[in-house]
Amino acid sequence: MSNLEQFITVKAFLFDVDGVFTNNEVQITESGELLRTIYLRDSYAIKVALREGFPIGIITGGTSLGITKRLNELGIEFVATGKFQKSPSLLEFLAKYSLDFKDVLYMGDDFPDIPVLKKVGMPCCPSDAIPEIFPLVNYISTVSGGRGCVRDVIQKTLQIQGRWQIGDL
Amino acid sequence: MSNLEQFITVKAFLFDVDGVFTNNEVQITESGELLRTIYLRDSYAIKVALREGFPIGIITGGTSLGITKRLNELGIEFVATGKFQKSPSLLEFLAKYSLDFKDVLYMGDDFPDIPVLKKVGMPCCPSDAIPEIFPLVNYISTVSGGRGCVRDVIQKTLQIQGRWQIGDL
Amino acid sequence: MSNLEQFITVKAFLFDVDGVFTNNEVQITESGELLRTIYLRDSYAIKVALREGFPIGIITGGTSLGITKRLNELGIEFVATGKFQKSPSLLEFLAKYSLDFKDVLYMGDDFPDIPVLKKVGMPCCPSDAIPEIFPLVNYISTVSGGRGCVRDVIQKTLQIQGRWQIGDL
Amino acid sequence: MSNLEQFITVKAFLFDVDGVFTNNEVQITESGELLRTIYLRDSYAIKVALREGFPIGIITGGTSLGITKRLNELGIEFVATGKFQKSPSLLEFLAKYSLDFKDVLYMGDDFPDIPVLKKVGMPCCPSDAIPEIFPLVNYISTVSGGRGCVRDVIQKTLQIQGRWQIGDL
Repeated sequence: MSNLEQFITVKAFLFDVDGVFTNNEVQITESGELLRTIYLRDSYAIKVALREGFPIGIITGGTSLGITKRLNELGIEFVATGKFQKSPSLLEFLAKYSLDFKDVLYMGDDFPDIPVLKKVGMPCCPSDAIPEIFPLVNYISTVSGGRGCVRDVIQKTLQIQGRWQIGDL
Repeated sequence: MSNLEQFITVKAFLFDVDGVFTNNEVQITESGELLRTIYLRDSYAIKVALREGFPIGIITGGTSLGITKRLNELGIEFVATGKFQKSPSLLEFLAKYSLDFKDVLYMGDDFPDIPVLKKVGMPCCPSDAIPEIFPLVNYISTVSGGRGCVRDVIQKTLQIQGRWQIGDL
Repeated sequence: MSNLEQFITVKAFLFDVDGVFTNNEVQITESGELLRTIYLRDSYAIKVALREGFPIGIITGGTSLGITKRLNELGIEFVATGKFQKSPSLLEFLAKYSLDFKDVLYMGDDFPDIPVLKKVGMPCCPSDAIPEIFPLVNYISTVSGGRGCVRDVIQKTLQIQGRWQIGDL
Repeated sequence: MSNLEQFITVKAFLFDVDGVFTNNEVQITESGELLRTIYLRDSYAIKVALREGFPIGIITGGTSLGITKRLNELGIEFVATGKFQKSPSLLEFLAKYSLDFKDVLYMGDDFPDIPVLKKVGMPCCPSDAIPEIFPLVNYISTVSGGRGCVRDVIQKTLQIQGRWQIGDL
């Protein structure tokens, strides 16, 4: 089974934030505020997938108000922050959208993502995930965290399913 | 016809912002403010082209007040923000400066730019545009978005037309 | 003795900040505030090592309140800032945790780090340290400052000592 | 005459800011504030050279208050901002420190720097200067703007003159 064919059964997307939407860097202000940098082509893909009706969720160990606000504005309703144990949030996501483990594409890059990657049907990671994660995923993106790995898996999924409509959003 | 010869009929410049003036990254503050990063060699070229009388315009899907203010300060009068459909803004730009489609160089990097790229006389893109755009343009810049692709096409145009005067600005 | 074997006697970690936790860049605001950018995989390793009981300290020539606050939040209690001469702070660190020079892994990247690198048992540097430092260290990380060199030496140390437990933090 | 020998007669340093202390990028806030990013190894070299008594000056077309404040804090007294024509500032710098053209190392990266590069005794540029500048300089740094080109020329100068003292600052 080729990489692309594996995307045909994906019904929902679940993402880690740091190292996936970002390159794992945070900028610190003098007052201790943490600033994250995201990639707009990822945001574009999020909007296309939501318009097509795909459930999309976020599970992050961080607690950035800015990222949460931004993801909500894009239309993502399931945003679980401050989650050091990610598996319970996976179960909540499945329950909220009446999904099964096999329906979900999850993308993560570091140790805390491993329990979730082992459970979902389509585990993925960015090109610069920690090496310990590579053997656990079905697909390693060709691009790195914060540089389009979210766009990569969403566009591949929607294209193989004939739902990547690129008209005006 | 070589690449450079194609720039000889360009009478006006029209640019996308994200992925052209920037590398598609935005930084998010805790309050949700979006910060963009631009490249000063692009700004220098904008100033040279405006001094030489070239109409320059911007069409962006984003709504950054900071970028808008900055582009206005450089002297760009046509700044269309929040435009998910970019073609109507192209028509406004042509009307404002009494231009024809064939007179315009447009540079964009992602799906929303395709309708405009298909209409103008000199469609261009940065080196890191999405691959779907490469077959649609007359010129692929040697540099990427946010690292001088704007400077590249302006300098090439003005040089082939003998109008790249680099005295003190 | 291989590189990994050298980590087996490390009992404590001491780090420079700029060029180790960061890539030596600082962003300057109009008001003169200095913003630094750190790498979250380093922060993850800090938390694992502290949980395992390793003393961790910081000696920096800079005075960033933001970085100090962030490192304190991670649980690091020894944070010496504004130290142009770093050796006295090394002695304080040894005294505070009842350590000997040979117990300490120190990582630094530039000239001010040399006196400390010469004293500790396990001197290390990031891959992009100044060339003058390479001959003085026992281990040159495969990654650069601000991109995981802290994680690299902590993970190697804890793994060789059988203490890299990657369960939920 | 080798590259290093040319540094032996340098008595003073004069620098452009954007593209030399920075990589030509500026970040724009929503309010239009411009943030620049500098490299701390450059700052270290500035402090060493000032301690050794070398006059150091800055000529920039920009007007960033943050950079000006930062350079002043490092001890640089000659900071000329908003200078679209840079040659008059070169003359002021020579007069202030009783220097001759041949005594000065100037480093710049773009068209506005050319008139000054043509006048000084030791014209230099970063590795990523515009190609039009390369034929005009005596030395092309091995590193780029914002990543140590200032440190490179200062350290080379002070070393060949036996004045690179790297004790505690």
